[in-house]
Amino acid sequence: MIKIGVINVSDRAAAGVYADEPGQACVALLREWLTTEFEPVYAIIPDEQPQLETELKRMADEENCALVVTTGGTGPAKRDVTPEATAAVCEKMLPGFGELMRSTSLQYVPTAILSRQTAGTRGSTLIVNLPGRPKAIRENLEAVFPAIPYCIDLIDGPRLESDPRKMPVFRPKGA
Amino acid sequence: MIKIGVINVSDRAAAGVYADEPGQACVALLREWLTTEFEPVYAIIPDEQPQLETELKRMADEENCALVVTTGGTGPAKRDVTPEATAAVCEKMLPGFGELMRSTSLQYVPTAILSRQTAGTRGSTLIVNLPGRPKAIRENLEAVFPAIPYCIDLIDGPRLESDPRKMPVFRPKGA
Amino acid sequence: MIKIGVINVSDRAAAGVYADEPGQACVALLREWLTTEFEPVYAIIPDEQPQLETELKRMADEENCALVVTTGGTGPAKRDVTPEATAAVCEKMLPGFGELMRSTSLQYVPTAILSRQTAGTRGSTLIVNLPGRPKAIRENLEAVFPAIPYCIDLIDGPRLESDPRKMPVFRPKGA
Repeated sequence: MIKIGVINVSDRAAAGVYADEPGQACVALLREWLTTEFEPVYAIIPDEQPQLETELKRMADEENCALVVTTGGTGPAKRDVTPEATAAVCEKMLPGFGELMRSTSLQYVPTAILSRQTAGTRGSTLIVNLPGRPKAIRENLEAVFPAIPYCIDLIDGPRLESDPRKMPVFRPKGA
Repeated sequence: MIKIGVINVSDRAAAGVYADEPGQACVALLREWLTTEFEPVYAIIPDEQPQLETELKRMADEENCALVVTTGGTGPAKRDVTPEATAAVCEKMLPGFGELMRSTSLQYVPTAILSRQTAGTRGSTLIVNLPGRPKAIRENLEAVFPAIPYCIDLIDGPRLESDPRKMPVFRPKGA
Repeated sequence: MIKIGVINVSDRAAAGVYADEPGQACVALLREWLTTEFEPVYAIIPDEQPQLETELKRMADEENCALVVTTGGTGPAKRDVTPEATAAVCEKMLPGFGELMRSTSLQYVPTAILSRQTAGTRGSTLIVNLPGRPKAIRENLEAVFPAIPYCIDLIDGPRLESDPRKMPVFRPKGA
């Protein structure tokens, strides 16, 4: 069974103040778009870089997640450490994800440039940082998702298929 | 009193060959847009990375500037070291600023991609690299300024208010 | 005589499975656009970071190439190491090249965000990563080429002139 990790990075969610709405929003989108079955693996982690690094490594190396999405912790505030933790555990960074997500969010809010969200690969796992609010999660994940299944092919992960009426993903001819 | 640092990075300006036109242009824009009073702190520094790092640290740590803008020194030439000095003193980099300033400048000149300008935070100070020519300073600062006051809020700096007819800044509801 | 290096980075091309179509495509474009005479220096290198670094250094330091373009090896796959080799040998990185090439390619394929292509300078040599397919090479090189001759001016390389009807390059007035 293909696994997809969903890490809510938030001091308040980790303290139980909030429910894991961002994580639920991510999984709802993936279930809407993907026809390939998958098992979500949830985690809620405070904004602590070492803890987040440990969880990202566990999701990649032990759970063998094809994809791990994080929500939150990408802003300029002192507690925001999600991009740093992502860069620390990834072997290759993919700057195009952050660029496209920021330029997409800029259509809605000028503060989109404050997000430091990025993406990268660790072994056969793709890690993508998303914002914390469900509305922004959809805007961002919709923008980059068409490239995600082929990215996972290229890093020798499992093949993900989508419902093309809901989320047309792209693979070059013959892939 | 809120302080804003303005560093003209230029061998020729530092040698007294030019007046500090870029610095004056930055302050004129900020006075046009902001209703919050502030005191500008000027410096003119040659294109020497250690000197610029020292001045950036002094403006952040001793002057407690809410914002420091630099002008010049962001191109590919050997003497251009402003982005390197900025990255060396910042704790967090904000790649969205450079992306938006370059894509804005691309509307005017194809050589916009040669600018390596960036932004980042050091403690409660936001540092933003701007070009050296007054016309380009306006184009660039206009593009990113709507996000600057909220960025300074998020790093626990002072609250900056603008005249919304001249520069509509953005804060999420409740911020 | 001005030299321009063209490195095809590909395990299969290096093994002789493919001809150097990407390299030929680059030189055909440069001959179409440039009125300044130049001598192409070709190399075909497998996706091995140390070998590519050695070749990039040789083209910059020994051949004194004004420009070196690479083709291929910029994706997320484990063997793709062209951006890493480029960053390792460059003194200054120019993120605007990768940003513009990705946003240009996004007009054609959503998987453009998977490219990690970048550019940078080593001494008086500009190094630019291009994709591997001839059609994508044209789309990408067309997007950034208007800024390349002025970039080479700024790093004290030779002056390249183009046919403005075929490729209008940009230099600020007086440059």
